[in-house]
Amino acid sequence: MIASRTTAAPPFDTALLDRLMQESGLDVLLVSSKHNVQYLLGGYRFFMFDYMDATGLSRYLPILIYPKGRPDLAAYIGNPNEGYERDLGRFWPGTLDLKARGSVDSMHYCLERIEASGIPVSSIGVELGFLPADAFQVLRAGLPHADISDCVETLESLRAVKTSAELADLRQASERVVDAITATFSRIEPGQTKQDIVEILRREEVQRDLVFEYCLITAGTSQNRAPSDQRLQEGDIVSLDSGGNYRGYIGDLCRMGILGQPSPELEDALAVIEEIQQAARRPIRSGAIGQDIFAATAPLMSAKRDGRMSFVAHGMGLVSHEAPRLLDDGPIPYPATHRGLALETGMVLSIETTWQHPRLGFIKLEDTVAVTADGYEAFGDAGRGWNRCGGR
Amino acid sequence: MIASRTTAAPPFDTALLDRLMQESGLDVLLVSSKHNVQYLLGGYRFFMFDYMDATGLSRYLPILIYPKGRPDLAAYIGNPNEGYERDLGRFWPGTLDLKARGSVDSMHYCLERIEASGIPVSSIGVELGFLPADAFQVLRAGLPHADISDCVETLESLRAVKTSAELADLRQASERVVDAITATFSRIEPGQTKQDIVEILRREEVQRDLVFEYCLITAGTSQNRAPSDQRLQEGDIVSLDSGGNYRGYIGDLCRMGILGQPSPELEDALAVIEEIQQAARRPIRSGAIGQDIFAATAPLMSAKRDGRMSFVAHGMGLVSHEAPRLLDDGPIPYPATHRGLALETGMVLSIETTWQHPRLGFIKLEDTVAVTADGYEAFGDAGRGWNRCGGR
Repeated sequence: MIASRTTAAPPFDTALLDRLMQESGLDVLLVSSKHNVQYLLGGYRFFMFDYMDATGLSRYLPILIYPKGRPDLAAYIGNPNEGYERDLGRFWPGTLDLKARGSVDSMHYCLERIEASGIPVSSIGVELGFLPADAFQVLRAGLPHADISDCVETLESLRAVKTSAELADLRQASERVVDAITATFSRIEPGQTKQDIVEILRREEVQRDLVFEYCLITAGTSQNRAPSDQRLQEGDIVSLDSGGNYRGYIGDLCRMGILGQPSPELEDALAVIEEIQQAARRPIRSGAIGQDIFAATAPLMSAKRDGRMSFVAHGMGLVSHEAPRLLDDGPIPYPATHRGLALETGMVLSIETTWQHPRLGFIKLEDTVAVTADGYEAFGDAGRGWNRCGGR
Repeated sequence: MIASRTTAAPPFDTALLDRLMQESGLDVLLVSSKHNVQYLLGGYRFFMFDYMDATGLSRYLPILIYPKGRPDLAAYIGNPNEGYERDLGRFWPGTLDLKARGSVDSMHYCLERIEASGIPVSSIGVELGFLPADAFQVLRAGLPHADISDCVETLESLRAVKTSAELADLRQASERVVDAITATFSRIEPGQTKQDIVEILRREEVQRDLVFEYCLITAGTSQNRAPSDQRLQEGDIVSLDSGGNYRGYIGDLCRMGILGQPSPELEDALAVIEEIQQAARRPIRSGAIGQDIFAATAPLMSAKRDGRMSFVAHGMGLVSHEAPRLLDDGPIPYPATHRGLALETGMVLSIETTWQHPRLGFIKLEDTVAVTADGYEAFGDAGRGWNRCGGR
């Protein structure tokens, strides 16, 4: 007698993934990055290794096996302590193998599972940037005739259009980051260091159920964005550009503060940035071309000014830079290959304008907008003027 | 004219590293894990990617190049935004190449640097579990005749004996984790979920300048250690086993709480665990053999009891399980290869005794001790009895 297995429905669009795999000629995906495992497991990220990977002489390495068109044969390879999560019913794949204590271990169990399931493996997609070399060597040796290629773009395409639940999380992430930033501005006093301020922001984000990721910070006329022992002085402007995640979804926004009164020149400078940010939004709607955003800001960007003005727009979600990839300069690993394509309802964009002003300092706004059928919706759109520090 | 370069002194024991490389036959190390990069750069961990790796179609990948016996030729390959850190004087290597935007990129720049410096590369040590497959492929193709092997154990050996500054950080990490745990117990009330309690602990740790990593939690008679919506009830016992880091150094301790009065049976059960924990410490001193710890606890462990009693001891530091590797059962990737070796002053051990009692629940203490010349010093040794929840 063969035991029947109950497999819950996959929490993502399997038809889309199967089509993307078909287009890339992939039989099976072996997914090992935390963000893509989270996506394919419907929000699950193993809590013990959320921050750290290293343990003993190796590291945590989850592997989700997804055979094209056969979600019923999907399997998840994890750590023994993930048995606690299994017992809580957190996994949808019908097969769980929770014995792996390291990266080599994980891939050995993965190969066992592949052999036992009999799924086709002539063309395997892996995340080459998120699969450690030792696990890759085990895979290569175990399936010497398979074609192994990178599936990062396939998974990025799958994630490009967000579900309503993802949009809700991204909205929360953005609103909470901005709320934490403005709360931090209200607590800034002269004499604090940039490091002190980042620690205040970290607490404000965690207080709002975010995982703090980082904060780029400038103060005064300095263009240096690292936390440091630079002390704030009366009259300084401050930029806070912070990433924090809510259930894995990233809020990444920048707001400006000032210890004192903004001069007319500072008011004007932020107004120029605001104008560019608003111009960038105007063409956004389902069906607009990514390039339209840059066309809308180009006349404003081309004006002659002191210092350096820069503008970028890019998709965001579980990863801070993802599809649609629209970046202005498109350096590796951000090739702007989606710039000529249509925006779709449910895509989420980060829009950033930065003025590195030689006399005034570093002035920037970064916003998050979601593409809708007839326009856009901004997430966390508060605090976009000069925030007065210390309640001044 | 050749420009003179100023190279700061490396912040670690280069003589020891050179000897370890000599013993392993390694010419050069290409170090890419966050924890080992931090160690070799004297505490530096790039703040933007401390939590996240993924960006665009690739990921952050720092590479520190260390040629045996030639710290003057050491180089660091990083991300463009690390220029802010360079300008603050945070790097000791004489050569910095901060252009890499992805893992493939990083390895290309690394190969350029190797070629330019003329250092010998017939035998290269990499961290196979922390080097992505795509970067490994670039390395393999670029140096087809080099012998490439894993240097994780070499780096683990280098880190095994902690400096006084590291011991101070580990003491802070342990004391703050325990302080956060006991503060959390005082805030536990019936009706809260395990997830609620973990969120309280997260805030308490962040409030104490720790980076929260995880919390394993049980409540009542359940043996399930994952955060969940299980609600606490009057009379429940609670185990909080949390990892948090201070400047990268891990505090990982477990303490017990109870919503009410501990019964005599619970008092006795925790006393048994306490007795094993104290027995484990007794042989610890510089020169003692790791095995002595297990010999000291073996008679106590062998008593017949309800449920399952387990005991482990292992080194800890930047990694939660590291040298000396003493684990009882020694699964991969924790082979207990240091069990027959002498403990040294400055090694730090985590000691854990767990009783999975079928009727009373999950009862555990985990402590941290540092090996000294004539004994040991316990870090964060407070709160080892039954902590009364909610100030009861």
